[in-house]
This record gives sequence, C-alpha cells and structure tokens, in this order.
Amino acid sequence: MKNFKILSIILLHVYGLAYAQEKVKSNYDYVNPFIGTEKMGHTYPGATTPFGMVQLSPETNQVPMFKENGQYNAKTYEYCAGYQYGDSTIFGFSHTHMSGTGHSDLGDFLIMPTIGKLDLEPGTADKPHSGYHSRFKHSSEKAQPGYYKVHLEDYNIKAELSASDRVGYHKYTFPETDSAHIILDLISNIYNYDDKNVWTFVRVENDSTVTGYRQTQGWGKTRYVYFAMKFSKPFSSYGHKRYEDVSYNGFYRKFDQEHNFPEMAGKKIRAYFNFDTKKGEAIEIKFALSSVSTEGALLNLATEIPEWNFKQVRREAKAKWEKELNKINISTINEDQKEIFYTAFYHTMLSPVLYEDVDGKYRGLDQNIHTSEGFTNYTVFSLWDTYRALHPLFNLMHPQRNNDMVKSMLAHYEQSVHGMLPIWSHYANENWCMIGYHAVSVLADTYIKGNTDVELDQLIKASTSTSKVKYFDGLGEYMERGYVPEDKSGASVSKTLEYAYNDWCIAQLANAAGEKELEKEYLQRAKYYQNVFDKESNYMRPKLSSGEWRKEFDPLDTHGQGFIEGNAWNYGLYVPHNIPKMIEMMGGKDAFSDHLDKIFETPIEDKYIEKNEDITRDGIIGNYVHGNEPGHHIPYLYNWTNHPEKTQERVRMICETMYTTDRDGLCGNDDAGQMSAWYVFSSLGFYPVLPGSTDYALGSPLVKEAEITFENGKTLKIVAKKQSEKRVHVKKVTLNGIDIKGHSISHFDLINGGELIFEMK
Amino acid sequence: MKNFKILSIILLHVYGLAYAQEKVKSNYDYVNPFIGTEKMGHTYPGATTPFGMVQLSPETNQVPMFKENGQYNAKTYEYCAGYQYGDSTIFGFSHTHMSGTGHSDLGDFLIMPTIGKLDLEPGTADKPHSGYHSRFKHSSEKAQPGYYKVHLEDYNIKAELSASDRVGYHKYTFPETDSAHIILDLISNIYNYDDKNVWTFVRVENDSTVTGYRQTQGWGKTRYVYFAMKFSKPFSSYGHKRYEDVSYNGFYRKFDQEHNFPEMAGKKIRAYFNFDTKKGEAIEIKFALSSVSTEGALLNLATEIPEWNFKQVRREAKAKWEKELNKINISTINEDQKEIFYTAFYHTMLSPVLYEDVDGKYRGLDQNIHTSEGFTNYTVFSLWDTYRALHPLFNLMHPQRNNDMVKSMLAHYEQSVHGMLPIWSHYANENWCMIGYHAVSVLADTYIKGNTDVELDQLIKASTSTSKVKYFDGLGEYMERGYVPEDKSGASVSKTLEYAYNDWCIAQLANAAGEKELEKEYLQRAKYYQNVFDKESNYMRPKLSSGEWRKEFDPLDTHGQGFIEGNAWNYGLYVPHNIPKMIEMMGGKDAFSDHLDKIFETPIEDKYIEKNEDITRDGIIGNYVHGNEPGHHIPYLYNWTNHPEKTQERVRMICETMYTTDRDGLCGNDDAGQMSAWYVFSSLGFYPVLPGSTDYALGSPLVKEAEITFENGKTLKIVAKKQSEKRVHVKKVTLNGIDIKGHSISHFDLINGGELIFEMK
Repeated sequence: MKNFKILSIILLHVYGLAYAQEKVKSNYDYVNPFIGTEKMGHTYPGATTPFGMVQLSPETNQVPMFKENGQYNAKTYEYCAGYQYGDSTIFGFSHTHMSGTGHSDLGDFLIMPTIGKLDLEPGTADKPHSGYHSRFKHSSEKAQPGYYKVHLEDYNIKAELSASDRVGYHKYTFPETDSAHIILDLISNIYNYDDKNVWTFVRVENDSTVTGYRQTQGWGKTRYVYFAMKFSKPFSSYGHKRYEDVSYNGFYRKFDQEHNFPEMAGKKIRAYFNFDTKKGEAIEIKFALSSVSTEGALLNLATEIPEWNFKQVRREAKAKWEKELNKINISTINEDQKEIFYTAFYHTMLSPVLYEDVDGKYRGLDQNIHTSEGFTNYTVFSLWDTYRALHPLFNLMHPQRNNDMVKSMLAHYEQSVHGMLPIWSHYANENWCMIGYHAVSVLADTYIKGNTDVELDQLIKASTSTSKVKYFDGLGEYMERGYVPEDKSGASVSKTLEYAYNDWCIAQLANAAGEKELEKEYLQRAKYYQNVFDKESNYMRPKLSSGEWRKEFDPLDTHGQGFIEGNAWNYGLYVPHNIPKMIEMMGGKDAFSDHLDKIFETPIEDKYIEKNEDITRDGIIGNYVHGNEPGHHIPYLYNWTNHPEKTQERVRMICETMYTTDRDGLCGNDDAGQMSAWYVFSSLGFYPVLPGSTDYALGSPLVKEAEITFENGKTLKIVAKKQSEKRVHVKKVTLNGIDIKGHSISHFDLINGGELIFEMK
Repeated sequence: MKNFKILSIILLHVYGLAYAQEKVKSNYDYVNPFIGTEKMGHTYPGATTPFGMVQLSPETNQVPMFKENGQYNAKTYEYCAGYQYGDSTIFGFSHTHMSGTGHSDLGDFLIMPTIGKLDLEPGTADKPHSGYHSRFKHSSEKAQPGYYKVHLEDYNIKAELSASDRVGYHKYTFPETDSAHIILDLISNIYNYDDKNVWTFVRVENDSTVTGYRQTQGWGKTRYVYFAMKFSKPFSSYGHKRYEDVSYNGFYRKFDQEHNFPEMAGKKIRAYFNFDTKKGEAIEIKFALSSVSTEGALLNLATEIPEWNFKQVRREAKAKWEKELNKINISTINEDQKEIFYTAFYHTMLSPVLYEDVDGKYRGLDQNIHTSEGFTNYTVFSLWDTYRALHPLFNLMHPQRNNDMVKSMLAHYEQSVHGMLPIWSHYANENWCMIGYHAVSVLADTYIKGNTDVELDQLIKASTSTSKVKYFDGLGEYMERGYVPEDKSGASVSKTLEYAYNDWCIAQLANAAGEKELEKEYLQRAKYYQNVFDKESNYMRPKLSSGEWRKEFDPLDTHGQGFIEGNAWNYGLYVPHNIPKMIEMMGGKDAFSDHLDKIFETPIEDKYIEKNEDITRDGIIGNYVHGNEPGHHIPYLYNWTNHPEKTQERVRMICETMYTTDRDGLCGNDDAGQMSAWYVFSSLGFYPVLPGSTDYALGSPLVKEAEITFENGKTLKIVAKKQSEKRVHVKKVTLNGIDIKGHSISHFDLINGGELIFEMK
C-alpha cells in the first residue's frame, strides 16, 4: 500500500489535482452509503459515526404499517431504513435508523425545512405536490460516512447533514424568504401505525432551544427517546398542531396553545419554527439525543458540539470513520471490489449503537436510569443475525468494543425480569424478535478469544440462567423432551438446532471454568439436534409432542415446516458445533457434498419465494439463500467433505454475484451488518463457521492483498498470490512461512500478525 | 389543660378504664376523618401522614368523567376524593388522593382483595353483586389519622390501612380459601375517562415484589407515578389482562402474556396475584410511591418500612399526627367543637404533599429528575384557595415546612418554561387551574413573617417574572390597559382584582429590598382594581376592551359576569390590600356595612345556585357563600366599618353553622385545606385578611382557651373570658396585659408568645 500511495503523490504533481484525487482515493472515499438503499438492503444513506447513537438520514416515504382494512401493509417493509432509492421525494430527516434490519422501528424526530405557506401535512410520495415533502434528484445527492447532502427542489433548499456520536447536525441553506419553516414532526415513525406514539412532550426553552421526548410502543414496547435541539438563529415565531382526539385537556384550554405557547404534549404533534432568511442564508440545527432525559440530551449537545461549525463536525465524523476504515487496507482485482469491501466494512459499523449519555447514564430494561460503570453501553443487538459473523468480526477488529457489548448484554441480563440475556436488545426493550439465545454465543466467542475481562462465572451465570427460562419460545419443552415439538411451538426445528448450538457455547464456558458437571449437562443438550433428524427422509424435520414426525413435510418450503427464514434443505444443516456428526448422520462426506451441490444447483420454484418477504430472486443461488442468515455457513461446509475446492468456488461466486456496487447491491437485508460481515471475512479468505471456537474456516480470498492492523498493534498481511478473477482455487496456505494443514486457521495465529499467504491456482 | 389531664388520670383510677378512656380523649382522638366525606366536602377517610406522599384510602364508586354522549358527567364531581359516605360498596384502596379539592385526579394503583372466582371487572356501585367490588357497613369502619379499617362483606375480608410518608401499608385478613386474590387495577382513576391512562408498566420482580408505573394525561398533562409493592407472602400465581385494542404488539405475541408472565405494559391493565390462605391469615402489602422511578420507590420502601409490622407503622403514623395536633390544645364550649377543630386542623395538614424520594430526588416540571438541595420538595399547591389562610396558617404553625414550600415553588419557577411560579402545582405539572398568580402572596407572606432564608432578590425575580407573562390568562391585557377586558378573557373582574392584590404582594417584596422604582411600578399595578369599579352601579363590573362597561350585567349571577366562583356582590369586595379605598369608592363606611349586611341577609335565588356545582344551599348565608373562597375575608370586613361587632357575630355564626361533626359537616369542598384553615384561625379569634402583611384581623374566638406552641418554642395562651354560646361580642382584647387598639393584631406579637385575652360580652 505504501508504494501505491507514494506513486499517487508523484502522480499528483505530474497530472494535476483533478486526476490525482481520483488516484488517491482513500478507504473512506470508497464507501458508498447508497449500496443497499434500493429494494431490500434496508440500509440508509444518512450521516452517522461508527456505532453512533444518532443516525441522521432522509426519509423518502412513509407507508403506514396497516391498510385501512387493518391488514399488514407489505410495502412498509421496504422502508425499514426510511429511504428507498427509487423514490423521488423526501419528506424529512430523522435521527434514528436501523441499518439493514428485517423489521424496523425508530425514525425519531423528523425535521423538514420548507418555505412559503406552512403545510404541516407530510403528503405522500405518489403525489409530488401534496404536503410538505419535496422532490429531489439523485444528482444533487452526496452520501459519505458522516455526511449527506441533497437539494430540496420544491423549496430550493440545500440540506446537509452530519453527526457526532450523540448529536445530529443539520445545515439548511435557504433562498431569500420571509416564510422559512423548520417542521419538527413528532408523529412520523418508521413502521408507523395509529397508536404507535404513546406520548410526546416538547418544551420551547427559549427562542432557539427546544427539548422534549417521545414514547412509542410496538416492537419496542416501552421506548423513550429524549432530545434537545438548538437553532443557529432565533426563530421569529413557532407553533404546533395536536392531531388526536382528546377527552379532556384540563385548563390548558385557557391558552392559545397552538401559537407561541412553549409547552406541547400529546400523542400526535407536529411543531414548526418560523424564520426570515436572506438568500443563501443557512439555518443550522444541533439535535442531540438521550435515552435518559432532556437534561441528558442538553449535556450531550453541549459536550459534543459546543460550536457552530458544520465543517468541523463533518471533519470529525470523517476522521472517526477513517480511523476505523483504515484498520484494513486492501488491494483488489478491480475498483468495484474496493467499493463493495469498504461499504461492507462501513455497514458492519452501523450497529449495535451507543446507548448512553456522555456521563455514562442510560435507560435500562427496567426503565430505571443506570450508569455504565467500567464500560460503554450499547443497544440494537439483532443477535440471531449478528452472532454469526458480525460479533466475530468485532472480536477480530474491535475487541474492546465487543467487550463493551458483552458488558451491555450482561447489564441487560441484570435488568431483565426474566433473568435473560438479550434476544434482540432494542432501546431499553427486549423485542423478542427471532429465535435462540445467541447472546451466549457472543459471550463464549468473546471469552474464548480472550477479549473480555468479565469474570467467567458471571458469563456462565447469565448464560445458564438464560438457557433455563421455560416459558421462552419452546425452551421448557426443549429441556424436557430434548426437542421443541412443532405442535407446541412453531419453527421448532430451527429452535432445536439453535438451542443445541447455544448450549454448546455454554459448554465451552463451563469447560473453560473447569466445571465438568455443567459442561457435561450442556454438551448433552448440545446433542439435541439429533432428536429432530429423521433418518428416513434424511432431513431435520418437525417432530410432534407425541414423539412422531409431523406427517406434512415439504423440505423446500420455508413456512410452517418447522423452520423460519429457511427450509429443511438449507436450515437443516445448522449443526456448526458438530459438523462431522451431522455429515455422518446424513450419509457421509460424499452424500453430504452431493446435498450441498443440490442446494446450490437445484433452482427453487417460485411458489417458495413469493411467500417470504425476506427472500428475493437476487439473493438466491439454486436453493441457497444468501439473503437470509441460516445459510451463511453452508458454502464453507464443503471443507468438511472431500471437496474443499467447492467452498472456494462457492464463496468466490457469492462474493462476486451477491454483492455489487449498485444501490440494490445487497441481495437481502444487510441484517444489522451480518451480510456485510460475511463479505468482509470471506473476501479476506476465512470465515467463523463456529463462533465460540477459535477456528476460522478457510475459503478463497477475493482481495489481492490486505493489511490488517489489530488493536494489539500487530499487523497481518494477507496475500493472494497470482490472484485473478479466474483463479479461485487455493493451492496452499502459509502463515509466516509455515504451511497450514487442513482448512482452518486459528484466531490467535491471525492476531499474532505476520503474513498469511494464499497461493491461488 | 394540665389540670384537666390530671383529673382524668385520677378518674382513670376511680372509674376504671372504659369510662376513663373517653375522658382522656387526646387531640388525636378528636379527629374524625369522615367529616366532609358526604356530599361536597371532598375529603377522604383513608390513611396518610402529615403532608405525606401516600394517601391510602377506599374508593366507593367510580363515575366516568364523560357520559356515553360525551357530555361531562356531573356526578363525577362527587368523587373528587374517591369516597362518598352514602355509598354501600367499596371497590378498592388506592394510594393517592386530593383532600377537598374542587376538581380532581389521582386514585393511583387501586388494590382490591377478593376471594372465589376471579373477576377483574370492578362492577358498579348500583349493582352490588357485579364485579369485584364489595358491600360494607359503616359500622365496620374505623378512621383515624394514619389508620383506616373496614370489613369487606362480600369476601369476609378485614381490610386495614396505614402509611408512612411514602409507603402505604395494607393488611388484609382473609378467611380460609384456596382462591384469595389481590387485584392491582391500573385502569382505575379518579376522574376517569377513556384516554386518561397514557401508559402503565408492571414488572413482577420475584414471587413477592412487583414494580411499575403509570402515566396519565388530563388535568395533570404529563403525570407519572412509580411504585414498588411487596407482599408479606409469595403469591402462588399471577396474571393480568390488557383491555385496549393494540395495533401491533411486536413479538410479545410469542408468549402467553396473561399468565405468570412477569412483564405487563399497556394503557389499560388489571393485574392479579393469587394466594392460598388459612382462616384469619393476613396478607400484608407495602406499597411505595415515587415520582422518579421504580428504583426510587424500592428505596423508599426499604428505608421507611423495613419490617413487616402493621402495628408499628400505625403507631408511627399516630405519633406523627400527635406531634402536629398537639401544637394546639384547646378547650371549648362543647365536645363537638373540639371534634370540628381537630378535624379541621387535621384537614389543613393533608396537602401540599411531600414530593421527593428519601434521597431527595423528585420529578420536576421539565420532566427531568432533580434533587432538592437544602429543602424538602412539595406538590399539590392549589394556590387560589390556599394562599388565603392555609399558607398563613403554615406561617404560624409550620414555618419551616412553609419555607420548604416556598423553595418548592421556586424550584417550580426555575423549571417552568414560562418562567412562572406555580398556579396549581400538580405532580410535576402545572395544571393552570383557577386564576391569579398567588404564589407571590405566599412568597411575600413568608418573607414578611421572617420565615424564609431564600434571598430576597430570588423571591423578587421569580415574582416579577411570573407577573409579566403576557399570554397568561389576560395578563398581557391587564398590563397594557390596567384591567382584563371581559371580551378578551373571561372572569375578567376576578382576574383584575386578584392580579392587583398579587402585585401589591410583589410591591411588599420590592419595598423590603429597598427597590423603590420596582415598588412604585407594582403599587401602580396594585391600583388596577379601581379600573373595574363602576361608579354608577356601585359594583366591580366587567369592562370591554373598548373601555366601555359590558351592558349585560347581573351582580348576583356567578357565571359569565366577569367573576368565577362568586358574583359582583361578594367577589367584588376583593381588594384586601386597600380596604379603606374600596370602602370609600363604594360610598363610605356605612354604605359599605349596609352592603355587607345585604350580602348576609338577602336570600339568593335558586337560579343562581343550580348553575354552579361549587355552591350548595348548605354553604350559603344569604348571598354569602362560605363554600367558595372569594368570600372568606368578607365577614372580617366589618372591622373596617363602624360595625366591628358584626364581624364577631358573622364569624361565630359561620363557625357554628357552616362546620359540623356530620359527614357532610363541610359546607363545600375543603379546598385543599383552605376551608379548614379558615376555621382554625377564626376559632382562635383572628384571621389573615391580607396575606403579605403581618396583620391579622380580630374576630370572635370560638374556643374557651387555647394553648399554641410555636416552632420557636414559645407558647401563646388564648383565653376567651366568660366565653359562652351567647357571648359572641368582644369587649376588649389584651396581649400580655396590654390593650389592643383597633381590630388587628400582629403576627410577631403572637409568635412572641404570652397571653392573649378576649373579654367576651
């Protein structure tokens, strides 16, 4: 890399600035936040810092979660991240977004600048002239990590966004007008429905400071977000409208509450602030969040962004991103691969998100205010997705942060009235989304890789407590019978397989502690996957509480067949902790690699696709669904057969076909970074098939070279010798000159640094 | 008094215990919490400590605030304190009540013990067998300060209640049953309506501890109450029902949330806890409140009542009451007068209420959590009522507490986005009920009487800021024009008169500070009462913004005539700060005393009564309405005419006819203690006609003797020589042997102690 940079600097002088700038494109420059914003990637293009609490991003459309007939509105799903590239209008910029999730929430505190006659109705995307939303052209857009820009055509306003960790920074450049407005829409929600807002509260503290909060229900059942906003210029007047019917409003009726009245409260409120502007005058807004209080938000605001300096905030956000992105420097066969790689790497750092104020205070699961002692608190743990490769990637690249995340999970456990680690930690809520108790995987993986200073017995206590909550999702049945009966709890096979893996993770912790009895108990539970294997059909298959297999069984169907987001063909291969045994059960290595071949080669019928919103044609190779997680380890399973070269082929094929530089360059939801983490690992040549162990399965690197700087200060250079598009097979792998036997490599060997050479053939 | 006690002790030996107990009735024993529980007194009979945060009291009926047609349901008004003596069923015991208010709220966390088949519907009072409510007989009831008992007939359960400052203590003695239930009804509200509950949240922390909170809207717009409850015995099972329609409940649908699921949240929840009980087995519950958090409630619980000992809690509550009640020892013409007096004195100590946790944390008006530094925080300031005599009584009897209340008001001001002192401080809300900004009266009265260590400039700053909020209730117009125009803001005359008085109070503070200009400014404003005096009709009269009197004018009507809770006849006499000038304006002393005579002697027509819920026949003497506050100074106004003896007559008559020992012994709402404070003062022989000055107007004492112990350690003995029912006129008053000239006495002379002798004739 160094030589390349020196060359660039020389070129700078020879060919002049314009050309040279292209040549010295930094890792930062390669990130394209628009990747995944079209179709089902569910990413957002807005401004945020690495793992930042604020995700300030445009919203292009809001499809109510329910149609007038009360039916779920499937189109809502497209707007998980608030933005769809195909849309041509923007109706505002809100402060919280999830990246690449398969369900959504948030979109808190939508800000929209407008001019002219005040209109507080957002209007709809399909009617360009209705409401306050504005048309825009993609040509006016720019999105970089920590920065977003767009021109709002209906109002001739240039909108720019940046952010610090806890504060969004808006800059709106207005035309000359005596009727500029900043709308603060507190009704707007991602995944909106009529009773989602439980309460909102706004105080106009003075002529340029506003505070408040919002409580929502639903996926996050009791979710609070507090804010403090400051304008760079005093507003000349302000007001709000409350939209819900109110039985009784007390003596507030004395006042003209709608105009210049500094208190607003209710379920459905839209506020506005009026200004006069000169031509080209910018109104800037600092908008801080807190989970604790408006006092906390004000503290965050004052601490993180004391000045009015958009450029400075943008520069600092960029510096934070550069620090993270420069931990891995790669060279690739083509430029697109760099764009894909750094965008993927970027996408792995959008969640979990920081969830505490600058003074360490945060809202806990018990709705009490806690202080993080000795750690930084995080939320948004989409663990069914992220335990697979995202947290392992953190254990490689951000071990200190991952330790904080482990501690955040333990705090969640301490606050849980169920005595459970998070399933899906959601802004001081447990939303119970998806299955398994995969926090134990993260705990085990982090401990085994030496990345946590938490006492082992604490990890074990939290893990075993979690694994014994009988009323949780068939777990009582699982403990009693050794499998989840399909007639008692749906997706029973998926649950059985994942509980078994989770229990293996707990056994690893027990083993580390020398607790033999406990290890034995959990190793026993870890075998329960065998109880849902049907020898006759050769599939993992739903079993009833009677002990009999359920008669109806279609191994290709993903619904009502004992699986979730997968079918018996692919999800049925989920025994990461004992792959040899699984292979043996399924007829041995050759039969198993045949099964794998069929997965990749048998086209799936349309009828199996249209039922499931999570599967799109783009994310499917035969019957392999890369857009969903349960298959992510499958391409690597050939390593355990006589055909490891097929792992190399499949991985390279997936890297090259399932990820592109297009806006729809993700073949499914990025799933809070898991899809991107798969890509980062796989393009470097290895993958954590079994989190909780120190082994990575070797694949076939996509990069030509990579230099990874670890937090321990050591660097690992990865070289794919003779790398080319055609050379996907690996002849030999050496680490620091020593041949690697087999098809795996140890975590500790990697972080010890040196040179990992793949000889391609 | 001493001799009487010694005599009693002798009698104890002579006549035996039963008889003697009656003889040694303590001040505590004279308190009858049932006074005011019938008709419109709006008091409650339950258990509380002096100014305590918990008011644990039975609820006999719940009349929804709105009828099915959406119209206000006048019957709701009867249930301001949750209890009506005329009812024959009880549906539970809730933890917060206002005493004697003219509007209401609260009733948080209703607990009801039942047995048999679980029924979560409360049923209604008019259908004795419906729902979980139970019949009861008054003969089984007992109510004392800090203690309440009743037998719930439908379930054969003895219910007993007591309280510490922040914790309610329930004791339910059950029959033998395998189906005992404790219902926790989170839907129940005083002044209930469909959307009042904004959110409720419950966690079953373990088999005997439950925490949670409730948020309500309405009179208190954004009101939170947190709780922690502990049962003396583990429940065997539990559950809840959620009653509202919910669009989307997230993945909670995975669970059987209704049974033994430790999280409950929603707008309309009723929970229950099941037990087996032996015959006569008591289940006890400690139920702590907090405005801060469940953590705060748990801390309050553990700190205040660590043990399970109902008797001890009851004993401690009694001791607290005795300490307060024994500050005044009286002898009277008859026993009823003692019962009335000590009950009135008791009623003056039910609000404002403590509003902070044991660690000093409390929820502020900005919804942030504050810590009271150097004071104790209080809420429930019904200031339009209580500035008149209740706070002056505190300045006499509880100056330290009143200083804390002043500081609580200043904290409110600091947290107010309006820069205003409280109008009606309501659990971290400003509910804006009634008119004026009478907190300035309390500030001035407290300062002038030397009872606050707050810096004078702080008092002035908060007061002047409050007095200049132009959008408040006609105040901008008042400042601009010198009166509130009726066409701009209703009740304009009442407002003008009260603002003028309030401004006089501010002038007193300015004077004390030597701020001459400021004093002049406010003395000028204090004259604005003159601007609403119509020479022609000889009444205070509503004026329009055009400067003309409004044509329609009925000086007897209390509605739409420029007054509120009063009419031109009585409320028109509200110029306490310049009574001589008012008398002069109205034609001189004789004309004025004639006017007063007419007030007391002209029967008011029915048509003027039925319109106003606050006026009942019982509270009216001619056209004088003792049940409402604007007249409370009127009987004392004769002192400024040539007929001070009529003050003496009227005051005695009011004491003897408007207050009785009956359940309906209050002639109107006790108005948060103001009615009772009037009685306490008047029966001692003086009254604070002008809070903010050190003068009390002399009346005619009702007591024969009184001994008052002040906080400064001094005692004042009041003696009414030759006192009898017939002797209502006062011949002479001496203080420590010196004749008092005129008809007033100074605060400082009183608290200096000694002997105040009224010679009756």
